Amino acid sequence: MKANELLQTEARVVNVGVKAFHDNLVAAGSQGVHVAWTPPAKGDVELRKVLVALERHRDAIAQANATAVARVLEAQPVWIDVGLAIDVIPGFNANTVLHAGPPIAWEAMCGPMKGAVVGALIYEGRAADREQAMALAGSGVLEFSPCHAFGAVGPMSGIITAHMPVMVVENKTAGNRAYSNFNSEKNRKALSFGAFDQDVQAILAWQRDVMAPMLQRAIRAHGGIDLKSITARALHMGDECHNRHVASTSLLLRELLPSLARLDPRDDQLGQLADYMRHNDWFFLNFSMAACKAGMDAAHGVPMSTLVTAMARNGVESGVRVSGLGDAWFTAPAPPVRGLMFPPFTERDANPDMGDSTITETHGIGAFAMAAAPAMVQLVGGTVADAIGFTKTMGEITVARNKAYSIPSLDFQGTPTGIDVRLVVETGVQPRINTGIANKEAGFGIAGAGITEIPYDCFSRALRAFVTELG
Amino acid sequence: MKANELLQTEARVVNVGVKAFHDNLVAAGSQGVHVAWTPPAKGDVELRKVLVALERHRDAIAQANATAVARVLEAQPVWIDVGLAIDVIPGFNANTVLHAGPPIAWEAMCGPMKGAVVGALIYEGRAADREQAMALAGSGVLEFSPCHAFGAVGPMSGIITAHMPVMVVENKTAGNRAYSNFNSEKNRKALSFGAFDQDVQAILAWQRDVMAPMLQRAIRAHGGIDLKSITARALHMGDECHNRHVASTSLLLRELLPSLARLDPRDDQLGQLADYMRHNDWFFLNFSMAACKAGMDAAHGVPMSTLVTAMARNGVESGVRVSGLGDAWFTAPAPPVRGLMFPPFTERDANPDMGDSTITETHGIGAFAMAAAPAMVQLVGGTVADAIGFTKTMGEITVARNKAYSIPSLDFQGTPTGIDVRLVVETGVQPRINTGIANKEAGFGIAGAGITEIPYDCFSRALRAFVTELG
Repeated sequence: MKANELLQTEARVVNVGVKAFHDNLVAAGSQGVHVAWTPPAKGDVELRKVLVALERHRDAIAQANATAVARVLEAQPVWIDVGLAIDVIPGFNANTVLHAGPPIAWEAMCGPMKGAVVGALIYEGRAADREQAMALAGSGVLEFSPCHAFGAVGPMSGIITAHMPVMVVENKTAGNRAYSNFNSEKNRKALSFGAFDQDVQAILAWQRDVMAPMLQRAIRAHGGIDLKSITARALHMGDECHNRHVASTSLLLRELLPSLARLDPRDDQLGQLADYMRHNDWFFLNFSMAACKAGMDAAHGVPMSTLVTAMARNGVESGVRVSGLGDAWFTAPAPPVRGLMFPPFTERDANPDMGDSTITETHGIGAFAMAAAPAMVQLVGGTVADAIGFTKTMGEITVARNKAYSIPSLDFQGTPTGIDVRLVVETGVQPRINTGIANKEAGFGIAGAGITEIPYDCFSRALRAFVTELG
Repeated sequence: MKANELLQTEARVVNVGVKAFHDNLVAAGSQGVHVAWTPPAKGDVELRKVLVALERHRDAIAQANATAVARVLEAQPVWIDVGLAIDVIPGFNANTVLHAGPPIAWEAMCGPMKGAVVGALIYEGRAADREQAMALAGSGVLEFSPCHAFGAVGPMSGIITAHMPVMVVENKTAGNRAYSNFNSEKNRKALSFGAFDQDVQAILAWQRDVMAPMLQRAIRAHGGIDLKSITARALHMGDECHNRHVASTSLLLRELLPSLARLDPRDDQLGQLADYMRHNDWFFLNFSMAACKAGMDAAHGVPMSTLVTAMARNGVESGVRVSGLGDAWFTAPAPPVRGLMFPPFTERDANPDMGDSTITETHGIGAFAMAAAPAMVQLVGGTVADAIGFTKTMGEITVARNKAYSIPSLDFQGTPTGIDVRLVVETGVQPRINTGIANKEAGFGIAGAGITEIPYDCFSRALRAFVTELG
């Protein structure tokens, strides 16, 4: 076509970058194709200099990341035991209160996390009611800490106190252990979501007095259950192992039942456990989290590695930890969650993003494996193509594929695993996550479920710290 | 392009029909596209006349098929009871021997079906060994009948005798009942595949004495389990509900466990059942078959309907029944099965296609829902695209989509349901089926698993009969 003919024909435009230009053209009746593109590091000149500066260390970082991600891929998480937190988690004492996400002081906590602390203190017999619990929490006696600092992970508020039963998961490859509490999301009023009333107390007491002793005896008799195998099979069965656990919960029960059935438990205990698991499709969530924590902790502490080893949110801030950067958290304000609100709650009731459950995405499952769970996108109004797109996009910020965790709809390609801080900063692609939504007021519980991202600033701050450490 | 330029350029060929022409061109280095096309009725002039003759009745047939397929779609199969065949199947007596597929005399049966009859007669205490059993089977005392004639379905040989426990499935919409025996494919030596040794006898006795009484008490206490709901969920979890039942078996156990746990069974019985179900991923197969039979029987007997209401194979012949054609079977020689042979067995050991389990494909699941179970194509060396293609192709010979049975990878489109004899004859597309493969000799058991088709001649014969009946 000659140049002078160009403007005599209908415009067909390839638009690169800012999508609004494309949308305007289409709205005006033109044909066009939009190419998603953003400048490296979102156009931040200083960050681009940081990325360029790191190029000198490219080989050393690549080798460190290969070492770190290999530890994730080779992890063999096995559920081996059940016990009270104070009995099985090293360093735990009667005043320890673990919470989700990066460190946060009592005063700064969001409503549902405070509600969960209140519920935990009543459960522990340290307070009779909300007022006493609030007073104790603010007294300075309690030792608040992120779960992650104790090798633990907790969904949503993540509150774990001394006499809550926890599962013990051992990574048979590296020998490290991880811990999580037991799921109580069968009811919408769950402690993890900030509810603390009598129903919540009854479930916690039943978990301690009936469920945990049974599970302890059964798993010891069984000799350990390979959670990697269950996760791998569940990814072929429509679970993404963060917000959908129908298959994994069913497989876990079927695997453990021969040992459970032979406990000869008193009275109606097995019946009660069967009831509990029949209606709780999230039972495996905490197992999935502990398994992922066991894998990611093994990858932590590799010098020069830019691999993300934890992503977690406390309902006020989101934060990440990086393999080569020790125990530091790199934080930014926790974002809202887009999703489905459960009536009568609306978006106005929603707390910002919260919970340690993003350890699953850190490990390459959850939203990173969304292509494995197309039924989940129905929840948030997406299509199957969206689910596949989620997983493909996360491949842009990860350094490996986990062959053990394959996805049928992607011709059994492995899940995108091992987030590289550099890739997030360079591409501007933020890790996507599936999550529950807590009511922002203490005492209400679950308000919805949806998707969000870990803030970009967590990664840019981590990268700046990395360069600073290099000197 | 001008005509005289045509042969001066490289040939790019659109080939329609015979694929060998296309293959030759590609082999010779040409570019080309192949369009699968066959002449209507495979070019059979007489059959095309039959199809044309039916055009006069098009509206009446369409209405009859709509009535029939609606009964399939509206069926509500619920597992309600367990009992011995002679106690719960109407018309059953001590000499009744049900077998899979269309009618066949003892003398004409294939090796594995004879093996299963031998095993059943030893189990019934009617014979002490193979020789006695063979003599009794040939004596004329026994009353052999297709399972289908008793509202029953049995996998592979389908042998059901008086004192075998069966499940009772009631279609709550139409009120009809269907029956199947219990799966024993945990071991490769299964009665259904023609094995009859002591291990097989021990499993049959345990099923009768331990498993069936427990399941009977549990399902009665439970009040009934909706098999449609389990099937629908399993189709979202990687099962196609004919040859893969990992999800459905797990979901069934989780659903029934509260009732099972409260039986207070003697000694180690629940532990034994838990062991049995832990390692038998096919446990739900027989439930799936009985549920499909309950739906298809409700659609049988609609005058003027060309809907296929049963497809079954006895290891010698494959046969189909048609809604508007009464109890007649339309048969053709059973084809071989292409698939994976389990060492040490090879294709030379394989019996031709056998079993009533194709009631699942008749109902629109199994191979018709292959897109729901991409992990299955790994078994036979296919790709995910092949699995999706299977389901799409079956849409060409079916009259409805089952919204209750949706497939995630097809954006939750329903399974192709209700095979129209006319569409099979016209398109030449044969119903595809997933199936196990029995060793052709009695006594060996499972030899492999794979895919095959129901022969075209079954459908052309049915269509000719339909026109003959119209006069």
